[in-house]
Amino acid sequence: MPAEVAPCVLYLPELPEPGASLLLPAEESHYLLRVVRARVGDRATATDGRGALATLVLLEDRPPGRARVESLERTAPARGAQVWCGPPAPGRSDWVVEKLAEFGVGVWQPLDWARASWSRGGARSGRWRRLAVAALRQSRRRFLLEVREPVALGEALEGLSAGAARWLADPAGAAAGGVAPPAEGVAIGVVGPAPGLSPEESRALERAGFVPLRLADGVLRTETAALAWAAWWAAGGA
Amino acid sequence: MPAEVAPCVLYLPELPEPGASLLLPAEESHYLLRVVRARVGDRATATDGRGALATLVLLEDRPPGRARVESLERTAPARGAQVWCGPPAPGRSDWVVEKLAEFGVGVWQPLDWARASWSRGGARSGRWRRLAVAALRQSRRRFLLEVREPVALGEALEGLSAGAARWLADPAGAAAGGVAPPAEGVAIGVVGPAPGLSPEESRALERAGFVPLRLADGVLRTETAALAWAAWWAAGGA
Repeated sequence: MPAEVAPCVLYLPELPEPGASLLLPAEESHYLLRVVRARVGDRATATDGRGALATLVLLEDRPPGRARVESLERTAPARGAQVWCGPPAPGRSDWVVEKLAEFGVGVWQPLDWARASWSRGGARSGRWRRLAVAALRQSRRRFLLEVREPVALGEALEGLSAGAARWLADPAGAAAGGVAPPAEGVAIGVVGPAPGLSPEESRALERAGFVPLRLADGVLRTETAALAWAAWWAAGGA
Repeated sequence: MPAEVAPCVLYLPELPEPGASLLLPAEESHYLLRVVRARVGDRATATDGRGALATLVLLEDRPPGRARVESLERTAPARGAQVWCGPPAPGRSDWVVEKLAEFGVGVWQPLDWARASWSRGGARSGRWRRLAVAALRQSRRRFLLEVREPVALGEALEGLSAGAARWLADPAGAAAGGVAPPAEGVAIGVVGPAPGLSPEESRALERAGFVPLRLADGVLRTETAALAWAAWWAAGGA
């Protein structure tokens, strides 16, 4: 079997079963036929972003290109992470989303806090989703980062999965370097806003079992804390 | 003693001894008198970026402003980190420098590799140094990130401190989540370039005792690996 031609994984949300063929959607077509210059018979890897990883064989290399699914393997995630995060300074959220996707975080949940809310803008979520797809391709992952709309802490806590491990980025917590990241299950990392949590929010997080975790010995910006927590979690990946 | 007025630490490379007074340099003057609106008698914290932390009292609040050093404490760093890093994709190095400074990394050493070199440009180092100062202020640190000029691996290895702990970001290494970051001494994290190390470079790093460390379960971009290593190291800070 020839080696695959593309360093990136293709993102095909509608990946069919093995034996079936499909026309490549616009972006994947451009990447495979123009950027990588794949030819008939070449192979590439694709994911649906929900755990499937498939080997494709190119059947037609004229745009948009047609490919057959040669094999397909589905996996349930061994572990998962969610980042719940207050607004960073303007212009700094895009790269948080990109980096969280690279680290394999499963859910990006922007949080509105008593002392700082996300501005409302229609274009942002779409841009974040495109960044998540780009990072999925680049990092050859099989799970797409889910981008959620901002909610208040109370609403996020109502939707909390019972078994999830819970951390709060907090300079008063135990040093993360001495705490092993969980090897399985879902872990949630909460990052407050720059002006700090309200007393009610602190109490609500404590009641819900969030454990303070010190990510560094200095003051971190919101986006840096989100990233540091994700890096800590990702370092536990087998 | 009144609380200090500024959330950020002032950066005064020429911090005099207690009892002496100084005129504030332009940027610190602007920040303290215009942004924070400090008045005569107000206190602020300052560092020289080399371990000193001082309390200043404002003596004159007309620009440029004059302050007296009330007390000064010098500390040797308990632990230190260096990041040796190949070039990321264009436009991505500035925020690496900012984030490394926030995490308290001591040295930023850009590395030229056989398969990827840093472009030569005079403005970049100056911009990086300004970013390092801004992060020092914001994170209230007392050690300024040292920005070095790019060198080849061989030259960097010649200057290696004997006792430094050594890691190489490598998907084939042990998961970082199972390795405790060092609590003291100097640690070096090496991040190769996107096209990979040459066989000679791999051998040179192995001979020099660099230990492969897996920072995540997926492929990380150069800048993300640099950041993940720094976050791993920073998580060990007491």
